[in-house]
Amino acid sequence: MEFGEDQITRLLSLMRWRRDVRHFRTDPVPEVAIDRMREAVALAPSVGNARPWRVLRVESPGIRAAVRDEFARCNAAAAEGYAGDRRAAYDRLKLAGLEAAPLQLAVFCLEDPETGHGLGRQTMPETLRQSAAMAVYALWLAARAQNLGLGMVSILEPRRIETLLGVPAGWRFLAWLCIGYPTFADDTPLLHRSGWQENSEPAWEAV
Amino acid sequence: MEFGEDQITRLLSLMRWRRDVRHFRTDPVPEVAIDRMREAVALAPSVGNARPWRVLRVESPGIRAAVRDEFARCNAAAAEGYAGDRRAAYDRLKLAGLEAAPLQLAVFCLEDPETGHGLGRQTMPETLRQSAAMAVYALWLAARAQNLGLGMVSILEPRRIETLLGVPAGWRFLAWLCIGYPTFADDTPLLHRSGWQENSEPAWEAV
Repeated sequence: MEFGEDQITRLLSLMRWRRDVRHFRTDPVPEVAIDRMREAVALAPSVGNARPWRVLRVESPGIRAAVRDEFARCNAAAAEGYAGDRRAAYDRLKLAGLEAAPLQLAVFCLEDPETGHGLGRQTMPETLRQSAAMAVYALWLAARAQNLGLGMVSILEPRRIETLLGVPAGWRFLAWLCIGYPTFADDTPLLHRSGWQENSEPAWEAV
Repeated sequence: MEFGEDQITRLLSLMRWRRDVRHFRTDPVPEVAIDRMREAVALAPSVGNARPWRVLRVESPGIRAAVRDEFARCNAAAAEGYAGDRRAAYDRLKLAGLEAAPLQLAVFCLEDPETGHGLGRQTMPETLRQSAAMAVYALWLAARAQNLGLGMVSILEPRRIETLLGVPAGWRFLAWLCIGYPTFADDTPLLHRSGWQENSEPAWEAV
């Protein structure tokens, strides 16, 4: 398969308009859109073709409420780590859209999957988690390509989420994904716009 | 920015034709193509906009040779972990294109960057490495969109590569990337074609 010049242009445009979204409309995500996100995940690279990711679609109002509480607890603890202007800036940030996002996915990574037969991860076991992170990015791009927003929530205690969801042994929590149609679009990411962290891209030095 | 129906179709096509490439032509990668890969990396998601990835472009023939030796050593050790048919199958696999790939990048992740001011990683420090893994996937897709192949090499000892390249303290080795034009295209990934690991995609269970 040979791609034309417009393939890279379109890819970069999609990447440029990807956002970490925290403001969602509550109308549901069409099942066909979810199918395509699932398809993107299945096409992610994985070490030894191990496909170590596991995804749970969380519909239970009780579990969703418990996760909101967990987020509030962890976020309050994180806020304590800042002082002065930085603390005030932190308190102004909206860091999750857990209350509104219609589709919520919990992503896990298997610690030691049979699939892949250990290939490529003897010296670097973290390649499993790299694969799962790439699967999350695949899902993120597939969401944005369908004009959906995705917010990745990491202000949670992994062990507590594993317990809350009662996952099998060997499943390690990686990320909570909030997905839905965004309430607004902006050409500047929120953390950039809020002044939390300007873009500073490192050069690729030659050696 | 609203994307049309063809955006997701094109993205899935690109993802479907992404490969872990280990057979490279030796003609150079155009600088303009490298610029676009760099642009894709700069658009990857990162926790707190920390951009914790660091990329070295490795041109030194001495370092490249040392990395080939390191790969050979680690690969021989990994092979010892298999027996019988599986060992024979492992020995038949070509797992890296280090001898031919014209562009070789070493990717690292900062352990504790100032950028991002710790946002989003208090309970999950691994979000930094997730960000860097996503940057690698961004680069991979940008390579494929330009008809370049990329092979990710993980059969290496991270500490040895850090020492070999003399990176600053706090840089952790994540991946060695071989990039160039592939010698052939195939609609079936190598590990699938060789019978090492068939595709087995987990369902998204609802809870």
